[in-house]
Amino acid sequence: MKQLDYFFNPKSVAIIGASHKPEKLGYVIFTNFLGNISERKVYPVNPDTTPILGQKVYRSILQIPDGIDLAVIIIPAKVVPKVLKDCVSKGVKAVIIVSGGFSETGEEGKKLEIKLKHIIEGTNVRVMGPNCLGVYDPYTKVDTLFLSRERLGRPPIGNIGYISQSGSIGSTILDCLAEEEIGISKFASYENGMDVNECDLIEYFADDKKTKVITIFLEGVKDGKRLIQVARKTSKKKPIVILKGGKSEAGMKAVTSHTGSLAGTAKIYSSVFKQTGLIEASNWEELFDFTKAFSTQPIPNGNRIAIVTDGGGFGVLATDECENHGLKTPEPSEKLKKLLRKSIPTYGSLNNPIDLTGDVTTERYKIVLESCLKSNEYDGVIAITLFQVPTLELNITDVLINLKRFNKPIVCCSVGGEFTKKLSRILEKNGIPVYLTPRRAARAMASLVEYGNFLRK
Amino acid sequence: MKQLDYFFNPKSVAIIGASHKPEKLGYVIFTNFLGNISERKVYPVNPDTTPILGQKVYRSILQIPDGIDLAVIIIPAKVVPKVLKDCVSKGVKAVIIVSGGFSETGEEGKKLEIKLKHIIEGTNVRVMGPNCLGVYDPYTKVDTLFLSRERLGRPPIGNIGYISQSGSIGSTILDCLAEEEIGISKFASYENGMDVNECDLIEYFADDKKTKVITIFLEGVKDGKRLIQVARKTSKKKPIVILKGGKSEAGMKAVTSHTGSLAGTAKIYSSVFKQTGLIEASNWEELFDFTKAFSTQPIPNGNRIAIVTDGGGFGVLATDECENHGLKTPEPSEKLKKLLRKSIPTYGSLNNPIDLTGDVTTERYKIVLESCLKSNEYDGVIAITLFQVPTLELNITDVLINLKRFNKPIVCCSVGGEFTKKLSRILEKNGIPVYLTPRRAARAMASLVEYGNFLRK
Repeated sequence: MKQLDYFFNPKSVAIIGASHKPEKLGYVIFTNFLGNISERKVYPVNPDTTPILGQKVYRSILQIPDGIDLAVIIIPAKVVPKVLKDCVSKGVKAVIIVSGGFSETGEEGKKLEIKLKHIIEGTNVRVMGPNCLGVYDPYTKVDTLFLSRERLGRPPIGNIGYISQSGSIGSTILDCLAEEEIGISKFASYENGMDVNECDLIEYFADDKKTKVITIFLEGVKDGKRLIQVARKTSKKKPIVILKGGKSEAGMKAVTSHTGSLAGTAKIYSSVFKQTGLIEASNWEELFDFTKAFSTQPIPNGNRIAIVTDGGGFGVLATDECENHGLKTPEPSEKLKKLLRKSIPTYGSLNNPIDLTGDVTTERYKIVLESCLKSNEYDGVIAITLFQVPTLELNITDVLINLKRFNKPIVCCSVGGEFTKKLSRILEKNGIPVYLTPRRAARAMASLVEYGNFLRK
Repeated sequence: MKQLDYFFNPKSVAIIGASHKPEKLGYVIFTNFLGNISERKVYPVNPDTTPILGQKVYRSILQIPDGIDLAVIIIPAKVVPKVLKDCVSKGVKAVIIVSGGFSETGEEGKKLEIKLKHIIEGTNVRVMGPNCLGVYDPYTKVDTLFLSRERLGRPPIGNIGYISQSGSIGSTILDCLAEEEIGISKFASYENGMDVNECDLIEYFADDKKTKVITIFLEGVKDGKRLIQVARKTSKKKPIVILKGGKSEAGMKAVTSHTGSLAGTAKIYSSVFKQTGLIEASNWEELFDFTKAFSTQPIPNGNRIAIVTDGGGFGVLATDECENHGLKTPEPSEKLKKLLRKSIPTYGSLNNPIDLTGDVTTERYKIVLESCLKSNEYDGVIAITLFQVPTLELNITDVLINLKRFNKPIVCCSVGGEFTKKLSRILEKNGIPVYLTPRRAARAMASLVEYGNFLRK
């Protein structure tokens, strides 16, 4: 068993700072574990030993009769050192320090964090945090997020390994994945990273069989050399999508106030990411969008993309975005055009974008998409499916899902309200990523192409 | 009464090509009018005079006993010239040609469109289209969209005047506005623009009292000089948000296949837009986002923005985006800091971004946001409200809505799933725009600042 396994699959957990009050973080975290009490033992710790929800409360971790794999700490900063010492004495394997008030707050806090470091030096204890959200694992149901399930959705099981240096960036992406019913393998938010950091987690996720794509939100790095080594090695095995926060000058200052890291300059980061095969997202949305694409789509063999649309204006915008992001949109060959014309009326355009027009039927999409994917002229397809047109039958979703057999990437762009979202959800649940704008669809496709290029080098 | 009024508020309408089959465009358009039959007369026209939904059908517009203000034509391209002649004979005031198959399809179609032009030359008839979606007016309930209400939502009454050269860009924005319950004044989608074009519509919306902001999706322009004149004049009165499609080389070609326009080069357009005070969106999302901001927010007096957040990582990203888009994020003065510290714990940062941290309460938001807006240190506020934190009370929406009294722009960034969207909807209904990412919030704020700068010049 690896040391980091204790974070994601502990047999016993102590919640130090488990609270009696529902609005407190320590209450939410404790209750997260109550649903799975048959799978692992959970021990609330609090000086006030009044039972919480009928569970016996311990005054200190040292008083718990059993061994503890994972301790979660949610208490004021100044008492954390003492409690961490107790954890060491107890022989705890892994500790998540949720409490804030350390290096992110200035000199005093920095000193306090160094104190914590000294406490675990020379021991086997691994610490995540402080100032962090901790972990969520849908397979083992370990969940140290202090955000209740009513307010923050939890994604189902899947293949995305998600590492975040920010609780808010981390949790909101989880929430949106949950809404679209896209699954993850593991989530870890390590913030100040006094011990466990992005490198440890990348290495761990690299070997994790459930993880197909690694997604990272990074603010600053403490050991750049190691990151480069780890990234280079891992990105040959699995795609790593990364968003770097604090790239502007003002943003760099903000990073220091947030996680006490040094942000470094934007250019250096971007060039390192490129060299090591990391796929850089330039904002929150792209981090989300690229992750979705890698989670579900095969890596394309080239950059020749067919845009198939039932809305001419969207075809135009998608073409702009493809060109802006290094994708080619060649016209179909005469031979392929002849084939397509059989199912496209004369007022529909056969150039690329292929415009099926506003009276499109499912059959028309089927023939055109299959012909493009079957041909050797395209490496992938952007299907702009505006579901609002009256002639389009609802089995369009089946047709799209069935295209996966061609083993080329397919991304959809479907824009609209309630009706559109209902159909989009069906696609996403079945492994076809849907994007709300042509730009996002094109960028997602470009990220797949970028990784393909890296692998072929 | 202006000539264009007949498009948006006709007393009588003929639907030429009204169909008996529910999946046909001519059926959907006809039924759109049935709900308001008490307000205006509606006459279906079709060679097959079997009644449609109990309504008497006329063989030709010439056989309708009453005068007709608006004719909507949904029939094959080749018979449109004959029917348009009939419309002229009948003395129809306005015609919307939904049918495609004209200049967007090549030389043959171009000739057919020129034929249409000759037919209306020297008459008072105004034509929208061909190849277009036509109009939607929530005040008069005129609705020529061939997209059914089950598949495409219709926005409520409001103050956005929306002009589109693309039915798909036009309709999807309507759908998304409807979902967020954001209202519009009028919508017109003119596509090929053989007669009524963007200039006519801008002029018309400029004088329309219900319209506060004009939003345009443009592919190509036939009379650049006039557009510059009209835009310059109008943008002094009302903000105009514009998205230009077909800016890349491949995109320009796609425009020709779509609406038969010439796209022109990206640089020329962008510099003209800047000079004339148009606010340029660089993609679909920004068109939507900027419109929301202008529809609800006052124009700021400068570019000093306070970022107030309960998620540190989002504060960092928002700071990056502000800097990237010309917004300043100065630190609060010592005096203001002192005031703020009273309600922010020591582990929260007082620099800008002001980090209220993950145990924020509504009261903390209230004091900080009010202090920033009251001070003379900030021209607007980006409130990053991640609703997932357990300590935040639900009356946070009331607090935010009440901030409108300070008459400075406020945009929110709230990211998440179901719970977050529920609260966001309340804010949007009450005039606080909510964005799903820090980038979008910062860009929306920057668009308001850009227009303020233009007005002050």
